[in-house]
Amino acid sequence: MPKVTIATVAERAGVSRQTVSNVLNTPEVVREETRARVIEAIEALGYRANQAARQMRTGRSRLIAVRIEPDRDGINGSVLDRFLHGLTDAAAPAGYRVMLYTATDDTEEIATFESLLTSYDLDAFVLTSTHHGDARTSWLAERGVPFVTFGRPWGAPDTHSWVDVDNAAGTAMATRHLLGTGHRRIGFLGWPAGSGVGDARRDGWASTLAAAGLPGTGLDVAVEDGIDSGAAAVADLLPSLDALVCASDSLALGALRAARESGHPCAVIGFDDTAVARVVGLSSVSQPLTEAAACCIDLLAGVLDRSAPPRQLLFEPSLVLRHSTPL
Amino acid sequence: MPKVTIATVAERAGVSRQTVSNVLNTPEVVREETRARVIEAIEALGYRANQAARQMRTGRSRLIAVRIEPDRDGINGSVLDRFLHGLTDAAAPAGYRVMLYTATDDTEEIATFESLLTSYDLDAFVLTSTHHGDARTSWLAERGVPFVTFGRPWGAPDTHSWVDVDNAAGTAMATRHLLGTGHRRIGFLGWPAGSGVGDARRDGWASTLAAAGLPGTGLDVAVEDGIDSGAAAVADLLPSLDALVCASDSLALGALRAARESGHPCAVIGFDDTAVARVVGLSSVSQPLTEAAACCIDLLAGVLDRSAPPRQLLFEPSLVLRHSTPL
Repeated sequence: MPKVTIATVAERAGVSRQTVSNVLNTPEVVREETRARVIEAIEALGYRANQAARQMRTGRSRLIAVRIEPDRDGINGSVLDRFLHGLTDAAAPAGYRVMLYTATDDTEEIATFESLLTSYDLDAFVLTSTHHGDARTSWLAERGVPFVTFGRPWGAPDTHSWVDVDNAAGTAMATRHLLGTGHRRIGFLGWPAGSGVGDARRDGWASTLAAAGLPGTGLDVAVEDGIDSGAAAVADLLPSLDALVCASDSLALGALRAARESGHPCAVIGFDDTAVARVVGLSSVSQPLTEAAACCIDLLAGVLDRSAPPRQLLFEPSLVLRHSTPL
Repeated sequence: MPKVTIATVAERAGVSRQTVSNVLNTPEVVREETRARVIEAIEALGYRANQAARQMRTGRSRLIAVRIEPDRDGINGSVLDRFLHGLTDAAAPAGYRVMLYTATDDTEEIATFESLLTSYDLDAFVLTSTHHGDARTSWLAERGVPFVTFGRPWGAPDTHSWVDVDNAAGTAMATRHLLGTGHRRIGFLGWPAGSGVGDARRDGWASTLAAAGLPGTGLDVAVEDGIDSGAAAVADLLPSLDALVCASDSLALGALRAARESGHPCAVIGFDDTAVARVVGLSSVSQPLTEAAACCIDLLAGVLDRSAPPRQLLFEPSLVLRHSTPL
């Protein structure tokens, strides 16, 4: 029996070899009826694409790897789940599939890189949760492994392609809204100093207050993320405040609870516009996660083709207003 | 230069070939310092495992595919995200990685099966959201593609391995709790008849009421999932009720809102113990998703080895009590 090739399939289906290739690699770009005809030919002839042969031909595995974040309190972690949904949705039409891995810190993630690169033929990585002194990007860059990051290279030069959301712009927007609705004693509930994202969110609040000629000193408090920790941290500060910008929805939920329990009214704005914020009526800064994920896939194409120099894209967040910030 | 093989790497690292293989396939089972030594040898010798060759040797790609569900209201969809976290966590120590795909219905999912099977060497699929007349399982079974399902084969014979959570037991448990705390007019807010999961959740409520000699007639209402739809659907029913069991947390949140707005007190229990339920104090039935996901990976090993006949495992849910069901 003669060997079944893409050419044999193309001949039987009455299409070009490129069309057969498209059906195999990017079926989304092929019209439904053409796709059905090619698949009929593939099945009738018993054609089975050889992944290894295809990779040798194209130099591509069409697999990209991304870390799935630990399932924390189900509130802030859900942001990266939404990014993952966006990435998977955008990858398929571009001819890629997403492979998952887990890791608890940089060291474990780099060990996983090694394991994945020796065991699977991966085209690229999409890294999330970039941070100061991020050992992952230099490790990949030194070995010539293609990658893009969702998150800028905090404190490191812009030598790779990345997509990020302007965190400082988000809290600045929230602070301006509170100023515009008559609040003057606007506090900030954030994370301990040192995290790029957390510091940027604090800066957006501080610089907006300063630009309005208002003092921020003594109006901010830092604590590990969480509802309970947020409620405890803000309790003493509440009598001095009429509004509060928070670095996360979890912290904001804690602040809302503390305000309710103390009977001290306080407008509260969270960050990330999670499902919980929608349900409890918490105003929150929203990141365009679907757009950012699609952009990561776009940038990857340039990285893999070496067709473009590294590019960086910063998205603007938006502010979603609800009951927690009465006008 | 002589070809670098697993044997060469093993010799340099002073370990067995099996240990090198473990570092490549299941690094988690190798001690940290041994792993470091093997990786040093791999890097020094420039060894690069050939995925294609490895597959031909083992007949395994060590890749399994699972659908990522659309991001709906961020409440009920989060259950399958939690399942995905559990699956990814359990896959790695077993030597597997998880690849994602999306699909909006059975037809599109089967088209995606075809595309994935011709373009990637996949070992198996893990299917979620099984339902009556599920075309996906028979399609895979006819082609001899290994799979397990999270969800039983509603109305079809148990010819494949599956893991499920006993939905009826969950609502029965909720109903018994309400009976035990003195409620007598216990309603049910569920989905339109026809979905296996939804019908089972309704049955658990109905059979528990019947066993207690209480009438359920006229105390249930069915509506598409959602907070707003739940609130609207239950408004007319509330005056007849002192408690309500719901098929989802979204419906339960709608019921809580309707009860608050009508001023009619009503104990409410949701289903799935989502992050939102924890935050707003909604009692809810909790599925052991991490355990179910790990069990799917265990069953897959048997399916891939053809070492065991199909197995089926039904997990018991548990009831998490919060403010929405005052004692």
